[in-house]
Amino acid sequence: MKDRIRYAPLRDKVTDPATAARHIQDGTNLFISGFTAGYPKLIPRELVRRASAGETFKINLFAGASTGDSVDGILAEAGVVAWRRPYMSDRTMRQQINADLIKFKDDHLSRLAGQVRAGDWGAAHVAVVEAVAVTEKGHLVPTMSVGNTPTYVREAEKIIIEISPESKELEGIHDIYIPEDPPYRMPIPIYRTGDRIGKPFIEMDPDRVVAVLLSDAQDSCAVFAEPDQVARQMAAHILDFVRHEIKQDRLPPTLPWQSGVGDVANAVLSGFMADDFYRDLDIYSEVLQDAVLDLIDMGKVRAASGSSMTLSHHARERFFNELYRYKEKIVLRPVEISNSPEVIRRLGVIAINTAIEVDIYGQVNSTHLTGSQMMNGIGGSGDFLRNGALSFIVTPSTAKDGRVSAIVPMVSHVDHSEHSVDVVVTEHGLVDTRPLTPRQVAEQVIKKCAHPDYRDMLWDYFQRAIHSHGGHEPHLLDEAFDFHNRYLVTGSMKG
Amino acid sequence: MKDRIRYAPLRDKVTDPATAARHIQDGTNLFISGFTAGYPKLIPRELVRRASAGETFKINLFAGASTGDSVDGILAEAGVVAWRRPYMSDRTMRQQINADLIKFKDDHLSRLAGQVRAGDWGAAHVAVVEAVAVTEKGHLVPTMSVGNTPTYVREAEKIIIEISPESKELEGIHDIYIPEDPPYRMPIPIYRTGDRIGKPFIEMDPDRVVAVLLSDAQDSCAVFAEPDQVARQMAAHILDFVRHEIKQDRLPPTLPWQSGVGDVANAVLSGFMADDFYRDLDIYSEVLQDAVLDLIDMGKVRAASGSSMTLSHHARERFFNELYRYKEKIVLRPVEISNSPEVIRRLGVIAINTAIEVDIYGQVNSTHLTGSQMMNGIGGSGDFLRNGALSFIVTPSTAKDGRVSAIVPMVSHVDHSEHSVDVVVTEHGLVDTRPLTPRQVAEQVIKKCAHPDYRDMLWDYFQRAIHSHGGHEPHLLDEAFDFHNRYLVTGSMKG
Repeated sequence: MKDRIRYAPLRDKVTDPATAARHIQDGTNLFISGFTAGYPKLIPRELVRRASAGETFKINLFAGASTGDSVDGILAEAGVVAWRRPYMSDRTMRQQINADLIKFKDDHLSRLAGQVRAGDWGAAHVAVVEAVAVTEKGHLVPTMSVGNTPTYVREAEKIIIEISPESKELEGIHDIYIPEDPPYRMPIPIYRTGDRIGKPFIEMDPDRVVAVLLSDAQDSCAVFAEPDQVARQMAAHILDFVRHEIKQDRLPPTLPWQSGVGDVANAVLSGFMADDFYRDLDIYSEVLQDAVLDLIDMGKVRAASGSSMTLSHHARERFFNELYRYKEKIVLRPVEISNSPEVIRRLGVIAINTAIEVDIYGQVNSTHLTGSQMMNGIGGSGDFLRNGALSFIVTPSTAKDGRVSAIVPMVSHVDHSEHSVDVVVTEHGLVDTRPLTPRQVAEQVIKKCAHPDYRDMLWDYFQRAIHSHGGHEPHLLDEAFDFHNRYLVTGSMKG
Repeated sequence: MKDRIRYAPLRDKVTDPATAARHIQDGTNLFISGFTAGYPKLIPRELVRRASAGETFKINLFAGASTGDSVDGILAEAGVVAWRRPYMSDRTMRQQINADLIKFKDDHLSRLAGQVRAGDWGAAHVAVVEAVAVTEKGHLVPTMSVGNTPTYVREAEKIIIEISPESKELEGIHDIYIPEDPPYRMPIPIYRTGDRIGKPFIEMDPDRVVAVLLSDAQDSCAVFAEPDQVARQMAAHILDFVRHEIKQDRLPPTLPWQSGVGDVANAVLSGFMADDFYRDLDIYSEVLQDAVLDLIDMGKVRAASGSSMTLSHHARERFFNELYRYKEKIVLRPVEISNSPEVIRRLGVIAINTAIEVDIYGQVNSTHLTGSQMMNGIGGSGDFLRNGALSFIVTPSTAKDGRVSAIVPMVSHVDHSEHSVDVVVTEHGLVDTRPLTPRQVAEQVIKKCAHPDYRDMLWDYFQRAIHSHGGHEPHLLDEAFDFHNRYLVTGSMKG
């Protein structure tokens, strides 16, 4: 393992987690690598050990995005997190955020690195980053994600490295580029999905490295469900619609695709597999999941760009067995580049993101259950929805065995306004809102997207809103949340 | 006037409005120049004449943004508008939009031109554009706005030109650049506010010109109120805050400014005048108003970029008297460039936009009164708020003599989510939401921004929401709109 530290002076800094973690004390601003994958494993464990041994301290934890149980989960449980930014998806951490025990602020992922460089988040006391190697000149080769690590490493006063047992062959898959900040920024020179514009390593000042740990811990694997009927139907609606737009000459045939995180996103990309119309795909996304490997294997991918890879156990094995082949197609970038509004709009990305609920006028709630309870965060959905050439918002029409309708009179929280959403999709159908007034959107969303069990209730609300208040977007403010309130009282949105 | 048509063959196409307007019939998609200024005047008047004479027809009207009474007002009144896109600010048109008599869809201004080129709005049957001249090669020199005119001229099947009596000296103030569309788009090469990247005219195929009209009609002038106490206080809060951020080294001292349309926006820029800290200003905005000329006269402006100029009668006179001098500082661009997310983020614009209401968590309503009634539209606020380096949302704390609070428990419509708003400003104070959780935002917005008359009611809502539902962003969905409902019933939000 030590031979992975090709910059010899850093070999002397190899130590044990307990020694390394002493640099982290009460009040430390801790900036870690990690974006669904590629997070440090040893230091979080050591912090938990200290807390269990009775030490009292709190850290402010900043990552690339979510990190899963092995960081967010155990640290939250140990009660050592004061602040957490941005996006997380761990159950324990979520509970503590909603109980105001952990302070959380949800940001567009594309904006964070610049804010850290501007000093908006305070001093970067310590960065803890996972790497597969340190180069001859003392630079870092990251693991399965890039996230905000380049900026964290640049800004941190002290750096702790966890050398990962992940394959050294990952070297070369990353493309690291930190843009200048305004007013001296120049265009980000990505013109095609696969363009490489930076270096395959993260530049680092080795003098700020205070400890190097040799790790044997791997990322926990993703578990993807086989796409169910609902996911397959939603994917089919999207692929049919895009095919139609391309055939009508309203959409060029070669725009890149983005698909959010999770089962539905994976299902949409899987939908490409059986569809001969789609070949030579460009994928300009945030998180690359199993389906991307499948599509590469079928010869359907020209280039796939993201900030991280989250793979199932099975896909991981394939990936590492033939890494040389996948590296020709895949590039991993900092999240401020993968999610860059400039690049997303230039390339004309077709963006597909999921919602918790959508209202009849196309306003989207991506983050809060019944208006108050944080789910995971906005993540990159705003970056892609707002800037894509064509943006889909996708949700199964119901949740909780039909007791919750994902189509509601008014969403209980808005993350994306109707102005940023082009097409609403459920398993029942799809509405292209672009040529429609809000009233026309409502009519079609109720008829085509809502679950049949809720259509009459939604229609009744819509009609009474028209006749009572009227207006461009008729609402009855005294019953806009009746669906939600009924659910809170009875456990079901049904009458 | 005819000598302004320097491309001789077009002189033969000079005709009268009645003849020209025959190209516009029932069902015509009519694309006009105009973005608060620079709209055609003769053709709208002729269409109204035909309607008054008993002819029955409806057009679909597309502009750059608002056009005022002389287009939107009279055409709405004549009942000849079927569809209108985007943004408008005319009272009669607004009433008809809210009564669903005119179909209206509100779009981010930066996206429109590309959608027209993609064919999303249907065939561009006729473009009617105002110009101060036609060049020797048959290209167009626009008047006081650029808006979407370059794309409308490129896409239109037929073009009607209104030669304006406005000074020929405007030639050279415009910078016309139409980006390629995805997937072939390259970076938009603006690196500094004043950069010129295109041509001083709109390229046009003169063979598609079906009529040229010689006009003696001018834009109606803007009327700006002297900044009142409230506007001056809000401006002072913003300037103090930015000064502080610059002194703390969290913001570079030379970022460009954007300020929305109207009195408050004008007041903010006026605030620079008496403030010695601010010099060498760059203004990268949408609409340039009187204050920009004042600042240029004081020697405080390095460059001012926009898509249009809206001036008061007095400022107009000054502007045209010394146009040669103002042209050195001012550049007018297509709205897809003035509002380009790519450029706004690259330059690091400080964005100031106004709201109808803001809620305690920083969600913003820019468009709909009591959730249902369209005011003007989202315009460019989303383009700037979402992509600026620092974004302010500004509103007087009350409206309607104090009977309406602009700070509410939950906004009745969301255009901009809390993730896209950095700082909330009223005359009472300012809250920088960036380092705060939603609960901390609520606490501070209630204490610092809300009008004292409403603070107790807001605090009561907030506290009960915490103790009842809790969560990351506590809300009581059964009384979130009590302020609005009370106003609808009693005419006041007060208890």
